Amino acid sequence: MDGDSRASNWKHRHLLGLESLSAEDIVAVLDQAAEFKRLAEQGERKLTALAGQTVANLFFEPSTRTRTSFSLAAKRLSADTIEFSASGSSLSKGETYLDTARTIEALGPSMVVVRHSSPGAPHMLSRQLDVGVLNAGDGTHEHPTQALLDLFTIREHRGDLAGKTVALVGDIRHSRVARSNIWGLRKLGARVIVCGPATLVPRNITEMGVEISYSLDRVLGEVDCVNLLRVQFERQRGAFFPSIAEYAHLFGMNGDRQRRMKDDALILAPGPINRGVELTPEVADGSKSVILDQVTNGLVIRMACLYLLDRAAANAEANA
Amino acid sequence: MDGDSRASNWKHRHLLGLESLSAEDIVAVLDQAAEFKRLAEQGERKLTALAGQTVANLFFEPSTRTRTSFSLAAKRLSADTIEFSASGSSLSKGETYLDTARTIEALGPSMVVVRHSSPGAPHMLSRQLDVGVLNAGDGTHEHPTQALLDLFTIREHRGDLAGKTVALVGDIRHSRVARSNIWGLRKLGARVIVCGPATLVPRNITEMGVEISYSLDRVLGEVDCVNLLRVQFERQRGAFFPSIAEYAHLFGMNGDRQRRMKDDALILAPGPINRGVELTPEVADGSKSVILDQVTNGLVIRMACLYLLDRAAANAEANA
Amino acid sequence: MDGDSRASNWKHRHLLGLESLSAEDIVAVLDQAAEFKRLAEQGERKLTALAGQTVANLFFEPSTRTRTSFSLAAKRLSADTIEFSASGSSLSKGETYLDTARTIEALGPSMVVVRHSSPGAPHMLSRQLDVGVLNAGDGTHEHPTQALLDLFTIREHRGDLAGKTVALVGDIRHSRVARSNIWGLRKLGARVIVCGPATLVPRNITEMGVEISYSLDRVLGEVDCVNLLRVQFERQRGAFFPSIAEYAHLFGMNGDRQRRMKDDALILAPGPINRGVELTPEVADGSKSVILDQVTNGLVIRMACLYLLDRAAANAEANA
Repeated sequence: MDGDSRASNWKHRHLLGLESLSAEDIVAVLDQAAEFKRLAEQGERKLTALAGQTVANLFFEPSTRTRTSFSLAAKRLSADTIEFSASGSSLSKGETYLDTARTIEALGPSMVVVRHSSPGAPHMLSRQLDVGVLNAGDGTHEHPTQALLDLFTIREHRGDLAGKTVALVGDIRHSRVARSNIWGLRKLGARVIVCGPATLVPRNITEMGVEISYSLDRVLGEVDCVNLLRVQFERQRGAFFPSIAEYAHLFGMNGDRQRRMKDDALILAPGPINRGVELTPEVADGSKSVILDQVTNGLVIRMACLYLLDRAAANAEANA
Repeated sequence: MDGDSRASNWKHRHLLGLESLSAEDIVAVLDQAAEFKRLAEQGERKLTALAGQTVANLFFEPSTRTRTSFSLAAKRLSADTIEFSASGSSLSKGETYLDTARTIEALGPSMVVVRHSSPGAPHMLSRQLDVGVLNAGDGTHEHPTQALLDLFTIREHRGDLAGKTVALVGDIRHSRVARSNIWGLRKLGARVIVCGPATLVPRNITEMGVEISYSLDRVLGEVDCVNLLRVQFERQRGAFFPSIAEYAHLFGMNGDRQRRMKDDALILAPGPINRGVELTPEVADGSKSVILDQVTNGLVIRMACLYLLDRAAANAEANA
Repeated sequence: MDGDSRASNWKHRHLLGLESLSAEDIVAVLDQAAEFKRLAEQGERKLTALAGQTVANLFFEPSTRTRTSFSLAAKRLSADTIEFSASGSSLSKGETYLDTARTIEALGPSMVVVRHSSPGAPHMLSRQLDVGVLNAGDGTHEHPTQALLDLFTIREHRGDLAGKTVALVGDIRHSRVARSNIWGLRKLGARVIVCGPATLVPRNITEMGVEISYSLDRVLGEVDCVNLLRVQFERQRGAFFPSIAEYAHLFGMNGDRQRRMKDDALILAPGPINRGVELTPEVADGSKSVILDQVTNGLVIRMACLYLLDRAAANAEANA
């Protein structure tokens, strides 16, 4: 499929989560990102697709890498950017979340990238605003561009996702990365095992079509990828495991566990990584790790999302 | 008047306040902004008027919307921007305000946008620096671009300002928005009523050519616009009214009061708004509210100010 | 030497310090900066040398002027920028310095500007990353672009550095500015006197080819330049002098001392300056002061460094 037909098949004006995308939609993003990556490798890093447009970053939760990645993606497409962070902003003056968003919208961006601690916050915005909304993480709910870059990275190294076995390891209960990955992996035909302490793996997660394992060691030999979720101390309300040492002992990836994986298995981690917790330095810097590829791919994934949303808006306008 | 003659009639190298502008000057800004708005609606959002130039934002007080609006206005004219905020800056290392400003000037911007808690700070800079200075709010003194965008918004909806009646409601004493609005509205021939608790309305404000009312209800029926000033908890040194509830009861705009206004009356508020204080949600989201138009218009007003100051500097140089 | 041969003689892919540069290298930077300054004065402020490229600013220590200067230098060369500051970043989530840097590198910048409190941090990055690294200050070790702009400013006002006498005054022990200046000045043939309280002048500094004086008054008459180092309260671990008043009395530059200097002597200070400590207002604003020239020159020096590093990388690739 060439670029034009890819863009014209994509109908969504918002990117809220992978739950609401079809397998075809997901593949369209991955293919578009692959094209941007190919162009960049040929030296065409600066494109003009969004010239004259403005992309707003609305981050109500702190972020370095996702915000920076979206901002750079917008600039690579020649858009101007509006950077809004909650700290030091009008929010401290009592303005509501929606009023802040409407104010930013009134400045004329064509798309708004939003991160918020409340699940569903971007969905609410997509109903209230007239611009495209991209979810950059909403509480424990979804983080679609992270999952898309994970899928892209696996596909790039191992080809088609169908039939692959992927283990998501760690705090499944509070992880928006896990939820978005599950939706995406299942839609593309992968087998998914979620693996973590019983306190951090909700029983009813099986309704999403995944298997549960409480032992990393038991599943290691059969997986094609492990995705080591971040231990998010800041998101846990209670004491879900006895100690960091205990967690690292049972669910941390180390050299010994790495050697028991298939030769061509991949190790992903959304970062920022805690060396010695989710994985040891030997693993982080080892040959199975694709952690830095994920960062690189995140940029082209976000370019692809911005581009496809913009095309969908233009097509909707042309047909109106 | 076409763009060139408009720009050539504007002689000011600084925008310090509306007190020092003539009616003709003010109209020149509004007309230029209208032209930029028309161009944007035709799809010409990115102009090249300031290409190769740098605009510096010097914010010694926190700001989200004004800073973002100026920054985006500069980018829309293809200028580069320097962003300076007091927090985390050299000021914490003991540098004076003027030294900071001179340092920024030495980086070569052609214009400096400044917000400062001291009245007159931008005026002092305009005498000390060789670059154009734009006042983005100086203490309780003036906030010229806010007043210009208010005037623009009223004119856009209701035509010529002459003969219109505008009520400014709330904390008149501490409001730079009120002061700049009074100068601008009076110069363009509007009748101005200032309205608020006696503690927040200085008696001698009548010297600026305005009427005083201590009752919003008494003036509601005769006004074409109300501008609901923000209750600025952070700027009040004493207890000027008994309670927020009392303030909202007497001076807050609500559905009942809104219905007693003329059908085509407008409700403005500089934002960020406190829902339930200066106005109820019913009013904020109602048909008389032009609050979000104000934000949109703020962008083209700031583009117009940057553009006219730049033209004045170029003309001054050409004639030197 | 014309621009092309200058660029082709420069071989360094990193700018880590002046210790590792030859006199020829230093002159190549100064000449390139002079050319950028000449172009700017002719109105060519925006160049396209780095169009399509990205420059990342990684500041693990707070900075206003150096960060802003590098950022603007990158934009003037048409590069996109990634801005990373330690505060509010992933570092607070436990990520290591190197992982942060690798993550930024994975976003695809061609050069990384780094400031860090640890001496040698940029050198370590230059061995670990595949991109060009520019040291924007590493602890008490080096601050090469500050020294280069100091050299540039002296040369601009007084010509060739060879045979000139320069006094560096103040906290020599903790000053990366002093160290980089000593390397640069000595390589270009200047005589260097370091001058300060005995507690702040390490004895073995003479190994760097400098003279020591504990009395500013004794050397005043013979110097062509004094460079008044900042009293860095934040970098001193102990009490190195009795009081600020005592310091200002002995080592502060004031009107009386200024009058005892040669007529054409220059006064430099890296800023942000503490008026009344390192120098009095009379001196800061006096005819010998070139403090604001330093800021202006810092911009073209940083443009020159970015440009030369980029050319070296391109040449290395072409020859590979």
